[in-house]
Amino acid sequence: MTLTVVGSIAFDAVETPSGSRDRLLGGSAVHFSIAASQFAPTRIVGPVGDDFGEEEYAILRRRGVLTDDVEHVAGGKTFFWAGRYHRDINHRDTIQTDLNVFEDFRPKLSPASRDAEVLFLANIQPELQREVREQCRAARFVAMDSMNLWIDIAHEALLETIRHVDCLVLNDSELKQLTDEPNLIRAAHKALDLGPHAVIAKQGEYGSALITRDGFFGLSSYPTTNIVEPTGAGDTFAGGLMGYIASRPGDVDAATLRRAMAYGTACASFNVEGFGSERLYDLERSEIDARVAELERNSCF
Amino acid sequence: MTLTVVGSIAFDAVETPSGSRDRLLGGSAVHFSIAASQFAPTRIVGPVGDDFGEEEYAILRRRGVLTDDVEHVAGGKTFFWAGRYHRDINHRDTIQTDLNVFEDFRPKLSPASRDAEVLFLANIQPELQREVREQCRAARFVAMDSMNLWIDIAHEALLETIRHVDCLVLNDSELKQLTDEPNLIRAAHKALDLGPHAVIAKQGEYGSALITRDGFFGLSSYPTTNIVEPTGAGDTFAGGLMGYIASRPGDVDAATLRRAMAYGTACASFNVEGFGSERLYDLERSEIDARVAELERNSCF
Repeated sequence: MTLTVVGSIAFDAVETPSGSRDRLLGGSAVHFSIAASQFAPTRIVGPVGDDFGEEEYAILRRRGVLTDDVEHVAGGKTFFWAGRYHRDINHRDTIQTDLNVFEDFRPKLSPASRDAEVLFLANIQPELQREVREQCRAARFVAMDSMNLWIDIAHEALLETIRHVDCLVLNDSELKQLTDEPNLIRAAHKALDLGPHAVIAKQGEYGSALITRDGFFGLSSYPTTNIVEPTGAGDTFAGGLMGYIASRPGDVDAATLRRAMAYGTACASFNVEGFGSERLYDLERSEIDARVAELERNSCF
Repeated sequence: MTLTVVGSIAFDAVETPSGSRDRLLGGSAVHFSIAASQFAPTRIVGPVGDDFGEEEYAILRRRGVLTDDVEHVAGGKTFFWAGRYHRDINHRDTIQTDLNVFEDFRPKLSPASRDAEVLFLANIQPELQREVREQCRAARFVAMDSMNLWIDIAHEALLETIRHVDCLVLNDSELKQLTDEPNLIRAAHKALDLGPHAVIAKQGEYGSALITRDGFFGLSSYPTTNIVEPTGAGDTFAGGLMGYIASRPGDVDAATLRRAMAYGTACASFNVEGFGSERLYDLERSEIDARVAELERNSCF
């Protein structure tokens, strides 16, 4: 089963209490695909500039990520983000965001990417997410992310995009903001009213929650003591989640979504243990499976 | 098995988005004992003033709470707290705190209270908690709560009290503050180093986590849509937790603690559905059991 992700490909500069890096491979689609490729062939769609070279492609390809739809914009520069993490690493400040080649990005999907059975619309302009959704008519399961910026400045477009996906994956504060509803469960039900049949709230250090019409599932995060740099944890969560879904035939029922969240949680726990997605570059599937088993033990009573 | 709780008995005045009340029966020991008495005979220890009358005693006794150790301070006024909740009901401001009879409170336990097998030291001055702990030598399981005030102004005394309990129950932000450690798991392990063999972090709307030397358990909160007034949710959680423990013979192992947390979570979910502990006044045990079963379904994958 193939999986397509559209989103950002970036260089990140980060400062953390334990050190800093000025040029990390990052971006939502990168974090996502490095995790998802553990489970299913993953095609990454997004633009890069001249500064994106063989070294970066090699990282993606070594994980089996299919890079044919990475669009090289000649003369352009790759998206750049810089941030500084606090001592409490759950808090950060954005120092700089340069859209660069992302500013004029219009996704052009190859036939292979369009034929994906599972599609993830990572956090980009909602109108672009919608265009990609329309190109992927064969997809049997489509999920999307977004962010506070689009909730503020492209609210109607975002609502329209949400109407056309199966699953909305958002930070819980964004879900509350989107629906203007401070209670998470009510907020999720308002989002379900827009069209998706599942809402997954990412809750940072606390874990995540799945809300459907007839059910609720809450999963604590993996009890990590060694958080080095958490950029991309949410995208890595989505990568593990959607990768697992793409690896399973048949309907995406609640049981599949629950287990998929555990795979997403396990992948995210590795992401935060290193800079960027570095901890996942050489990760074995068995290491992920071991953490999923641990999450299962951590959540039973 | 008998359970003793020492803590505050109070009148609360609260303002919420859905209404206000100027005289609610409250206080940590009250919320605790109304929940705990669902599971085991519970003795409440704390001071009241002349304004605390038959009406209040009747509420406690109707639930089977044993009130012999409620100390009536002639000429005194009962502890009073006033607060205002925000539209996001997870946030509140304290408007007024009058210690009143609590100011000179020195717990005097009856022989029956001292003989309790299970003891909960609700949030009061750590020195007083310590005195009570020393009076209850027969207790096979002792847990305690505290708050940011004591972490700030009575830090050493608090650490000394923690050394003499089996289980520390704290808000996760307080646990991080106590140990000066922003990572929850590290913070909990620092607290375990002080002596307790279990730490339970209360995480508000997210749920709770149990950290022991060799394990972790995370439990999401009950997915409540109807939060009326959450004062005392943490004390009610502790009441369900300790009540369940008191109702079980034998060693308090990790499996017992996990199930006890589910009972605490279920009790807390009822607490937030009404003003004060009112929703628990006429609650049936079967209603709690039903929510525990639901929590079990909500946490499996």
